[in-house]
Amino acid sequence: MSISEKHRLPRHIGFIPDGNRRWALEQGLEKQEGYGHGIQPGLALIETCKALGIEEVSVYGFTQDNTRRPAIQKESFSKACVEFALEVAQRGAALLVVGDDKSEQFPHALKPYKFRRGAGIKVNLLVNYGWQWDLNGLKNGTLRSQDVSRIDLVVRWGGGRRLSGFLPVQCVYADIFVVEAYWPDFDESHLDEALTWFERQDRTFGG
Amino acid sequence: MSISEKHRLPRHIGFIPDGNRRWALEQGLEKQEGYGHGIQPGLALIETCKALGIEEVSVYGFTQDNTRRPAIQKESFSKACVEFALEVAQRGAALLVVGDDKSEQFPHALKPYKFRRGAGIKVNLLVNYGWQWDLNGLKNGTLRSQDVSRIDLVVRWGGGRRLSGFLPVQCVYADIFVVEAYWPDFDESHLDEALTWFERQDRTFGG
Repeated sequence: MSISEKHRLPRHIGFIPDGNRRWALEQGLEKQEGYGHGIQPGLALIETCKALGIEEVSVYGFTQDNTRRPAIQKESFSKACVEFALEVAQRGAALLVVGDDKSEQFPHALKPYKFRRGAGIKVNLLVNYGWQWDLNGLKNGTLRSQDVSRIDLVVRWGGGRRLSGFLPVQCVYADIFVVEAYWPDFDESHLDEALTWFERQDRTFGG
Repeated sequence: MSISEKHRLPRHIGFIPDGNRRWALEQGLEKQEGYGHGIQPGLALIETCKALGIEEVSVYGFTQDNTRRPAIQKESFSKACVEFALEVAQRGAALLVVGDDKSEQFPHALKPYKFRRGAGIKVNLLVNYGWQWDLNGLKNGTLRSQDVSRIDLVVRWGGGRRLSGFLPVQCVYADIFVVEAYWPDFDESHLDEALTWFERQDRTFGG
């Protein structure tokens, strides 16, 4: 069955592109060199989602926790997120960047996207995001990620079977599919497997 | 390796005992007859956790969403939760029942446990729990489940790869282990497999 012949597609997919550093080490590169190799796979993934007619995707860029890593890594993943986001916007998408933009860790180039801009598939990129930062918004009435809708399916690369603080409220009912491959080794077949699996899941939404 | 020889045990395990109704149907019983068959496995699980020296466990009893099911099912899972909880308390545990106790869906017999009572392993039983009810506490400063600590490992029976609203904040960094067997078919080997798997996971806590 071709990827476009699925009957029941998720409306909103969350992506956790993990394993960039482990991939780099396996290639004989330095850890921080992995991130740049995640950009083209990310763009390919968005194009596939567009072609399938997926309405909304959320992508885990980097977190406030991640910014405690060595500076050379931090610069590298931040740069990769900026390059990815600007190219996504350029190719046509309704882009929203979600994260603490009051911190110097938030890339200046992404500030125009703290409110959704553009038309097309909704792409939410988490940058300098923190689950506590997000939930603290509730103290003033609403999540800070309130413009991100409920997620149906989470696909995580790199073998980890956990959410790692990824949009905890939007993911309450999400089905979680884990790909063992590291993110820079993304292949369209991973998404195909995730969607085939998702079709078979019984969606109860807690009922 | 015996279950007691693990080096790195989780401090706090969350249990999602799913599949009672599917188990009942497979046995030629009616759906609601499954819940009663989950009590003895639950007691056995708690005894194993005590023997291992696990400090805290959280068990998904039923949710506010679940109470919209047919009355015959609702009575059955509510009764099973009460019987389980009172026996856990009787055998010795620091029991806390977490859920909306202002509703008539909250069993009267469990009201004494809305504050933690007793000594021994901490057992948190979610009864008439709702993730929104829980998070709404933040609007007044703290989660309603504030006495439940961070969860290291979630074990879910019945094949579902999702959290289904189970303590979303405590589970942000939890590793999730899925057992295909239905809950009433609980066997100690399931916990053994989960703990063996957990030992191999790289705990980063988002860093």
